[in-house]
Amino acid sequence: MDNFTFFNPTKVDFGTGKEQLIGQHLAEHGIKKVLLCYGSDRIKRDGLFATVSKSLAAKGIDFIECGGIVSNPILSKVREAIVLARGHQVDAILSVGGGSVLDSAKAIAAGTMYGGEVWDLFIGKAAIETALPIFDILTLAATGSEMNSGAVITNEATKEKFAIGSVHTFPKVSIVNPALMQTVSRDYLVYSAADIIAHSIEGYFTAIVQPRFHSRMVEAIISTVIDTTETLLTDPTDYAARAEFAWASTQALNGLIYAGTSGYSYPNHMIEHSLSALFNVPHGAGLSVVIPAWMKWYHSRNPAQFERFSKRVFGLATAEQGIAALEKWFDKIGTPTRLSQLGITETDLPATIENVLGNARYFGISELYTKDAVTAILKNAL
Amino acid sequence: MDNFTFFNPTKVDFGTGKEQLIGQHLAEHGIKKVLLCYGSDRIKRDGLFATVSKSLAAKGIDFIECGGIVSNPILSKVREAIVLARGHQVDAILSVGGGSVLDSAKAIAAGTMYGGEVWDLFIGKAAIETALPIFDILTLAATGSEMNSGAVITNEATKEKFAIGSVHTFPKVSIVNPALMQTVSRDYLVYSAADIIAHSIEGYFTAIVQPRFHSRMVEAIISTVIDTTETLLTDPTDYAARAEFAWASTQALNGLIYAGTSGYSYPNHMIEHSLSALFNVPHGAGLSVVIPAWMKWYHSRNPAQFERFSKRVFGLATAEQGIAALEKWFDKIGTPTRLSQLGITETDLPATIENVLGNARYFGISELYTKDAVTAILKNAL
Repeated sequence: MDNFTFFNPTKVDFGTGKEQLIGQHLAEHGIKKVLLCYGSDRIKRDGLFATVSKSLAAKGIDFIECGGIVSNPILSKVREAIVLARGHQVDAILSVGGGSVLDSAKAIAAGTMYGGEVWDLFIGKAAIETALPIFDILTLAATGSEMNSGAVITNEATKEKFAIGSVHTFPKVSIVNPALMQTVSRDYLVYSAADIIAHSIEGYFTAIVQPRFHSRMVEAIISTVIDTTETLLTDPTDYAARAEFAWASTQALNGLIYAGTSGYSYPNHMIEHSLSALFNVPHGAGLSVVIPAWMKWYHSRNPAQFERFSKRVFGLATAEQGIAALEKWFDKIGTPTRLSQLGITETDLPATIENVLGNARYFGISELYTKDAVTAILKNAL
Repeated sequence: MDNFTFFNPTKVDFGTGKEQLIGQHLAEHGIKKVLLCYGSDRIKRDGLFATVSKSLAAKGIDFIECGGIVSNPILSKVREAIVLARGHQVDAILSVGGGSVLDSAKAIAAGTMYGGEVWDLFIGKAAIETALPIFDILTLAATGSEMNSGAVITNEATKEKFAIGSVHTFPKVSIVNPALMQTVSRDYLVYSAADIIAHSIEGYFTAIVQPRFHSRMVEAIISTVIDTTETLLTDPTDYAARAEFAWASTQALNGLIYAGTSGYSYPNHMIEHSLSALFNVPHGAGLSVVIPAWMKWYHSRNPAQFERFSKRVFGLATAEQGIAALEKWFDKIGTPTRLSQLGITETDLPATIENVLGNARYFGISELYTKDAVTAILKNAL
């Protein structure tokens, strides 16, 4: 096992009705005024906004609204929110939504406190030295953002989808009520399943140091995602399945399954970031296309681990069978496995490859992910 | 899944050489003087004490020594240390040792700041409202104390082995260097294996709400303990195995495998606490005796989970086969499975049963663990 430091100070308040405690959590941190970030007006129609307002009012906490954050969240919106946060001198950012809203909240929290242009923090021009405290109520389980310090934002101008992360951008408190996720659409449920699986397998397959214990935990997460997704597709109101799905999602990217592993990379995310940056496809949908294509290209580099995956997750024998089983499962649950399903065709490949190569430099893995390699992977996905 | 709040603010600095960073970690927390708690003089002979002293000196941190903490740590020593800590006005407690030293450090940290008698905190007469900050360098992986807020201390006068826990008693920083554990004796290695398995299975078998995801994580921990113990018995210097063993130990009791489960209890610990309180047997040795005896008595109350255990951990079919396999494995690694191996005979049973019944009240499970039940379990262990 490699040396590591594990530190995750986020408090997760998990379960039914927990959104009613948001005012109390904020008050315990001495917060008086928040920037309330959200996506569509759905939270106003379904009552969540009213619940949050009431909880804040009960503790005398003011809020400034910042709605309209979109999936694959964009830099221009982050900049707009930073202006709001500064103008109203809020003392915390509250995200009510899924990973896109929360990632935006993290970027806003860091950007508000940074003197320069927020994108500097994404391109390594400046480090995050402080951030406003971040709180969230999660309405979609997928990104794991509720228990980590990372945030991914798309710069629409440059078509770059880049990330930040710092000890200052862990949420102070994340409220996860699986019941709030019952209204997640069938599409977003299966995209989320692909996202969680992607978070789990990136290290599992690519790490040079990958202890068996960590592999077992990854297999626990993936098996749970498979089981509970199938249950939820049959019965979206199954609370137990929704809760296990959500908690598995949190565990997939809170640092635990990576602590002590080393030499890993995020090639599936690297490639998918280009798809969502260029074609604005849902992140999970892009991932379910990329994963089998990448696996077919990569598996001979780590045959023992792919065989292990096949055996432990699907009860099959060979690497190829495991990959085929995962692809078939993606097909079964209805998340795309072909670029054509995303409306991306062979004529889009040159621009996509170019963008991926830019990401490969950013991800530090351009030695392996050459033009030929990326072309081969994307062609597997056509 | 049941509602829960998960919060674990301990920073774990894991890996080779990390003990050299203790001064730096303390300095980052503004600490100037610590009470340095340890067990035997072994740390002076093997160089760890010198390493720690040097690291503290480099940051200008003073220390007061408090050695001689024993396994199954005792209240009188905690009291003695509190007097020292107060007298020297230390501003943190530093534990260098295993779970017994660290548990003592937690009790000292809370007791120093509490106006009354420290045992009040154990019997619920007072709550822990603050504590000195706690730091540790772990030299034995077993109790999980390095990443939780709990501490178990024996009151020698009353023969009670009771626990405390509070948000104030999480270690600030735990340093876990598996290489420091290479000199752990063969006996203590196998006792530790039993302890980690006990932490994992208490909830696994007794919880009313026990999600499959949590069961899978427990199975990952147990399988890892089994694999790595066998490796370490063959080659105590196998760092990879030592590291996985240590990290599995941490995961077994950092709250994760219990978050969202409910209705569980700690019957094996409850019974074992009597054995170590009355006969001062090593905690893990007591547990490996109690576990199979308890399983034989309990399994018909949760047959599906015992079958699951048998299948997932040992690849066997029935509950009985799984229990027999675990007992056989304990025998194989050389940790006791009979009271007689601990020097406890039938004539000791009445006093033992009486003590367990006291614990059952303390643990809140005296309805199930009646005199007849406890007698039956202990007789299984003769």
